[in-house]
Amino acid sequence: MATIGEVGERALVRNIRAIIRRSPGLGPGDDAAVIACGDGNVVASTDSVSFDRHFPDGMTYEQFGWTAAAVNFSDIAAMGARPTGILAALMLPEGLEESAIYDIMSGIDQCAEFCGTWIVGGDTKFGSGAVTGTAIGSLDGRKPLSRGGAVPGDIVAVTGCLGAAAAGYYGKRAGMDVPDSVFALMVPVPRVEEGIMISQSGAATSCMDLSDGFAVAAREICAASGVGMEIHEEFLPIGGDVDAVADALGMDRRDLVLYWGGDYELMFTFRKDMIDRLYEAGLAFSIVGIVTDGDGPYIAGADGRERMRDGRY
Amino acid sequence: MATIGEVGERALVRNIRAIIRRSPGLGPGDDAAVIACGDGNVVASTDSVSFDRHFPDGMTYEQFGWTAAAVNFSDIAAMGARPTGILAALMLPEGLEESAIYDIMSGIDQCAEFCGTWIVGGDTKFGSGAVTGTAIGSLDGRKPLSRGGAVPGDIVAVTGCLGAAAAGYYGKRAGMDVPDSVFALMVPVPRVEEGIMISQSGAATSCMDLSDGFAVAAREICAASGVGMEIHEEFLPIGGDVDAVADALGMDRRDLVLYWGGDYELMFTFRKDMIDRLYEAGLAFSIVGIVTDGDGPYIAGADGRERMRDGRY
Repeated sequence: MATIGEVGERALVRNIRAIIRRSPGLGPGDDAAVIACGDGNVVASTDSVSFDRHFPDGMTYEQFGWTAAAVNFSDIAAMGARPTGILAALMLPEGLEESAIYDIMSGIDQCAEFCGTWIVGGDTKFGSGAVTGTAIGSLDGRKPLSRGGAVPGDIVAVTGCLGAAAAGYYGKRAGMDVPDSVFALMVPVPRVEEGIMISQSGAATSCMDLSDGFAVAAREICAASGVGMEIHEEFLPIGGDVDAVADALGMDRRDLVLYWGGDYELMFTFRKDMIDRLYEAGLAFSIVGIVTDGDGPYIAGADGRERMRDGRY
Repeated sequence: MATIGEVGERALVRNIRAIIRRSPGLGPGDDAAVIACGDGNVVASTDSVSFDRHFPDGMTYEQFGWTAAAVNFSDIAAMGARPTGILAALMLPEGLEESAIYDIMSGIDQCAEFCGTWIVGGDTKFGSGAVTGTAIGSLDGRKPLSRGGAVPGDIVAVTGCLGAAAAGYYGKRAGMDVPDSVFALMVPVPRVEEGIMISQSGAATSCMDLSDGFAVAAREICAASGVGMEIHEEFLPIGGDVDAVADALGMDRRDLVLYWGGDYELMFTFRKDMIDRLYEAGLAFSIVGIVTDGDGPYIAGADGRERMRDGRY
């Protein structure tokens, strides 16, 4: 019998979906669940961060708390929903200094305030150092944005810029002076306002956040929608320090921009004939490619055209 | 600076509440949060269980998964809400055998089915062995049951029986043959139907689950309502093996029944003049005492009358 480490998280999730009963709403498989509630729908998403895996060197406890909240609000944003609360389950080592737990909660609270909402519940237990957040959101009568609605001919776009978190991580590790990128890594900004604008525009056909990287989001939208994507490398909005870090460390820029993750931006597809609605909404975004009737995402640029790789850098 | 182990979970929670912004709804402090949603309210609660602290000798992974779900549905039940979904965030060691994760998820799914709902989302990460569940529920237009509405003269009641989980734990550890109590420990039943009946009756003035023990629930309701309670020991519905285990092990029965926890029953208070509504609903419950204008809960029985202790056995 294999161990779960050998099987890997993605295969486990696939196998789990095969054995549990299927829920009637939009359930496991999108960024957040959609649950019927009164005359509308509530959106909910849960995600854990841990000291072991999500606490880069130099991060403060406040930033760790902010991140624990941000990863969840980002999932709510990807559904086009408005956050209405967050629950935080803390599992922290008994030997942790008291101030750390208050800093973590304060970071969660600050991120909730940034997203226009509150900490509404939680749980505190002794454990190995992890926070599980659950963000709740409301669609205010709109249809949820899912991963599965992209149609050939749609435009592919992203908010913000790409590779900043990766540049912050590798640049800082190498002793480079890249404060903006380090801040992007330590204090990820969930694109809540942008998600609501994308949803309200009525133009979007799919949406997903880039938490696991650009390539993962592109592949997921392609798989869920049964389409392909042609991404044009020269269109990609690249974070300010990315080229300097890639050059200094001899890294492939695509690894930072496409395959690393940690950029809590939104990828979305929209109907070409409705682009004015996005401009009218005042949304800042970059067009990066087009949806095709092909099979999965491709990237084309000066270094040639290639199928986006599976997996993360 | 103290560590969080030295400060203790209850003091930490109190201090955290002092530093985070207060949410507009019924927020931290009750069994579950109440969040405005469309024309109604959604109820949400989060709770973690871990291999270290919630995996008694002899428990299966399926039962661990059931328990992870049950503790959360119990909080939804205590609000008088109907469960509408559960999210499960798994943090499991890479070396865990693959079948264990499927058994855990199957246990969660079975408990969700028992409660009339589904797994609607989740997260799977490698970690130290913990599951954070978040249960969502709907009040279907009813007011939430809180801890704060008990009034002197109200009756105090509980569902089910008391001390079974403790008897299962200590009896099994001592090699006694107490299968029903062991089952109560390993497969706690969230009182969802009962919570809805209590809420629908319109008679209840407060409610809380007994997950942390009878004494904790009594104290919390007293504190939140600003009342006292007189509990009559001879009225307490005692689990079948409790006396045998207490006698065999030379334990004080009150420690098993009042101070141990793990009985996922509901304590509630109700208006004396509306008791018929509870009988008409077909609810099975035991009257155990009365709400007073005193200060906190007292227990009176053959061994005398005493103030219920703080803390757990």
